Amino acid sequence: MASKVLSPVQRTGPYPVTCDARIEALVNDVIGRVADKWTMLILEVLEEGGRMRFSRIAEAVPGISQKMLTQTLRYMEREGLLVRTVFPVIPPRVEYALTDLGRSLSQAFCGVWLWAEANVTRIEKARAAFDKKANKALTS
Amino acid sequence: MASKVLSPVQRTGPYPVTCDARIEALVNDVIGRVADKWTMLILEVLEEGGRMRFSRIAEAVPGISQKMLTQTLRYMEREGLLVRTVFPVIPPRVEYALTDLGRSLSQAFCGVWLWAEANVTRIEKARAAFDKKANKALTS
Repeated sequence: MASKVLSPVQRTGPYPVTCDARIEALVNDVIGRVADKWTMLILEVLEEGGRMRFSRIAEAVPGISQKMLTQTLRYMEREGLLVRTVFPVIPPRVEYALTDLGRSLSQAFCGVWLWAEANVTRIEKARAAFDKKANKALTS
Repeated sequence: MASKVLSPVQRTGPYPVTCDARIEALVNDVIGRVADKWTMLILEVLEEGGRMRFSRIAEAVPGISQKMLTQTLRYMEREGLLVRTVFPVIPPRVEYALTDLGRSLSQAFCGVWLWAEANVTRIEKARAAFDKKANKALTS
């Protein structure tokens, strides 16, 4: 198994080699939960909007379905990224707000937003070139 | 429509307000494609492994199906994040490598990896607390 742990493609952090595989699995699991476009868009919306109701979040995240928003907010609450507060009024009012952990993830995603903003044109060109090549291959 | 463009939850970049909505839509579209755990894991693997064959990438990305890997590599090629090279040997050899654009996205994701590494324990605690509360609500 040593060759697997020491595989050159395996990520090595500042940990002893024996711990690395365990930490790697945990980190991959965390990434698997948070690296998701809906999570990223909701973080952004809550970072700017502060405490918000479900319906306002839904308006601010283009294209999200009610089911996907419910599910993503629940995942985010479970990871400790946001808190859900129910106000005992009639009808009940439910609000969502980022925790410190959620805000720190939003900051970490900042580099990815900046990257996307800086490279929109380059990506559009790459897509057009790829589609042209794919169409050519289909018709030749 | 002005009230929609100026909505306080809408992201405002360093652009004139009239351009903001168009750029916002493009950036959201780019984020929708790249903010994905498989893309993030494949970027990481190719950043460390250099030029790689399909089977080696599959080994290095835990839990990915062959279908999902094929689809994600194709999306990534279309966005200009990687190049796919077919070597005319028998049997044909196909290799994948990051472009400069792909490497720059990998760098942008670096902050998210560091965040995940730094917060693994905090997230595990949040999950345990959430599950305990959810179980209690079910049984009470």
